[in-house]
Amino acid sequence: MLKVEKLLFERNITMKINRRNFVKNTSLLTLGGLVLPHSSYSIMKKGSLPKKGLKLSFEPYRLQLKHVFTLASSSRSTTPVMLTKIEFDGFIGYGEASMPPYLGETQQSAGKFLSALVLGQFSDPFCLDEILEYVDNSAPGNSAAKASVDIALHDLIGKIIGLPWHKLWGFSSENAPDTSFTIGIDTNEVIIQKVKEASEFNILKVKLGRDNDKEMIETIRSVTDVPLCVDVNQGWKDKKKALDMVFYLKEKGIVFVEQPMPKEMLDEIAWLTQNAPLPIIADEALQRLTDVQSTIGAYSGINIKLMKCTGMREAHKMITLARANQMKVMIGCMTETSCAVSAAAQLSPKADWADLDGNLLISNDPYSGMKVINGKITLNNLPGIGIY
Amino acid sequence: MLKVEKLLFERNITMKINRRNFVKNTSLLTLGGLVLPHSSYSIMKKGSLPKKGLKLSFEPYRLQLKHVFTLASSSRSTTPVMLTKIEFDGFIGYGEASMPPYLGETQQSAGKFLSALVLGQFSDPFCLDEILEYVDNSAPGNSAAKASVDIALHDLIGKIIGLPWHKLWGFSSENAPDTSFTIGIDTNEVIIQKVKEASEFNILKVKLGRDNDKEMIETIRSVTDVPLCVDVNQGWKDKKKALDMVFYLKEKGIVFVEQPMPKEMLDEIAWLTQNAPLPIIADEALQRLTDVQSTIGAYSGINIKLMKCTGMREAHKMITLARANQMKVMIGCMTETSCAVSAAAQLSPKADWADLDGNLLISNDPYSGMKVINGKITLNNLPGIGIY
Repeated sequence: MLKVEKLLFERNITMKINRRNFVKNTSLLTLGGLVLPHSSYSIMKKGSLPKKGLKLSFEPYRLQLKHVFTLASSSRSTTPVMLTKIEFDGFIGYGEASMPPYLGETQQSAGKFLSALVLGQFSDPFCLDEILEYVDNSAPGNSAAKASVDIALHDLIGKIIGLPWHKLWGFSSENAPDTSFTIGIDTNEVIIQKVKEASEFNILKVKLGRDNDKEMIETIRSVTDVPLCVDVNQGWKDKKKALDMVFYLKEKGIVFVEQPMPKEMLDEIAWLTQNAPLPIIADEALQRLTDVQSTIGAYSGINIKLMKCTGMREAHKMITLARANQMKVMIGCMTETSCAVSAAAQLSPKADWADLDGNLLISNDPYSGMKVINGKITLNNLPGIGIY
Repeated sequence: MLKVEKLLFERNITMKINRRNFVKNTSLLTLGGLVLPHSSYSIMKKGSLPKKGLKLSFEPYRLQLKHVFTLASSSRSTTPVMLTKIEFDGFIGYGEASMPPYLGETQQSAGKFLSALVLGQFSDPFCLDEILEYVDNSAPGNSAAKASVDIALHDLIGKIIGLPWHKLWGFSSENAPDTSFTIGIDTNEVIIQKVKEASEFNILKVKLGRDNDKEMIETIRSVTDVPLCVDVNQGWKDKKKALDMVFYLKEKGIVFVEQPMPKEMLDEIAWLTQNAPLPIIADEALQRLTDVQSTIGAYSGINIKLMKCTGMREAHKMITLARANQMKVMIGCMTETSCAVSAAAQLSPKADWADLDGNLLISNDPYSGMKVINGKITLNNLPGIGIY
């Protein structure tokens, strides 16, 4: 373990309490920020701009999941994340990297990546292009670690300006969609219990792609008529069987189907999309902006996740690209704190669907931010990404 | 003539002087705005938000060209424009529609379009998506008139926040490119004179597509070695001859070629692009965001003009789309005041090339804004579009 990481892990022991205090202080700062942030920045800009640079710091944190999370291949009860902070001229922006093990990043890799960044060279946080290009080029991969810088920087800029990003982007918060809530793979009894507990949601997400897909749907339909969306995680291998299933799902009130077949089977997926009575959404098939073009014509839409696409700036571009090609847009997440979820929520007014339940699945969220009210993503007017 | 337009034309008699005063007052307001704009907005937002809406007004204006402007088919010495203004909570945003006759819009059509808009229904200028969708859907066409609303709205929002748009978009102003300066079609003697007068520019634009293309290039090359770009305005009809010309132009230090052949000859243009030693840029082939996709693969890049694409917001999206497809980006303009040119200049840090000389071609510019210094687009730090 690198020295800096060891230090960070040791600090992590007292972190939860510190984080709470930290967050409390920030909250005051933020609410105060509503009145004066930009003017103070402007005054600073007019004359004696102190030429100090951005200050990045980070701390590992371990999310406790409310329920054991089961995928086809594994199950787990925690998610490792890295919480970041960028300070500039008395303002603090917060970010986060969430790193579910199957995506390849770890607290160690993120710590190494973030330690190597020299953000002190940048004395103007508004030069997002320049700063994020530097971050992106500093090493390949590390998309969640990159997102943790991007989010903190957006939070910082929003706080300096005194406005939330959905406003800076020109979106109307009332256009934010409902969020789906994921019903994990489990026994029929537990599934029924989970569906009943999820009654505040207007759309549920169901993981399919195993042998008992229809049984799963029938089980859920035995207790609720709420619209469902389905994530197959590349589980179906035959395009005709897949089409039959999509017709069945249409009958059962499903709204769209995510990544029905392996991403490599692009021709088969394009055929499925052309013939399917429901939108077919790309998930595993894309990570970043450069991947969007290849989904055009093969899928009806894309699922954008900050941890895969390096953050809010690239996600915003991906939405523009998808919309310009008449594609549907979905905003998703990992298990995350309210930090990364609230950052993603800033983009949600431009999404057809959102799957932003990551913070609701954990029991030790150090932040508050975007709320789900009556099943709908409800953005506050706090500056930056809107956390407190 | 509609009553409102008649009124507007009558007002136009005293307009030039009024505009100067207007601009002067705004200038003071703007400079004051650097200190307090956002805080006053924030304070307003906290409690007693007055529920009044946006107030749009507009006045026709006639640009006097320094030199008679000659195209293949016509020549003229003035350009009709419409100057717009959106007021909200003590802030004023300025916009402009420039309407060269060959594009189909007139002061009358713009007046009719703008008169029919009810912007008073919008009480939050930040809801750009909602407002501009309303404006766009209110009538087909009218792209310059739409741009005049978009620009004024961006100027307004930037002033409320207290920042210029290149900063809000995360661009670095030092990345702004040189602007080209257009050498119009004329006698050899006059061309030589114009080239000599344009010595402060680092790149010149030459209009080709007539019988004497090589003579034109030789004439210019007899007095300067400065890089040139070439706009053929769809003038070449044979792809092999076009390719020969591009090889010739490459030898002569030309940087890129704009719209070499008629836009309908897409396959021939794609062939030319594939074989040409210089980038081939689409101009007449596209107007708006929805047109970009069809240029991918056929051209090396696109020329974006606010008056054709309905304004800054759509232009910004077009850049994202082009960049995501590894296409070159050029920002162009019509003969315009410093208002529309400065608005376009906000986007220029993301452009490979700029052709923003529209305000330099007129003798009665009512505004100041972006400056060309040593041939380079030089953005100021004034909020909004940066005019005064």
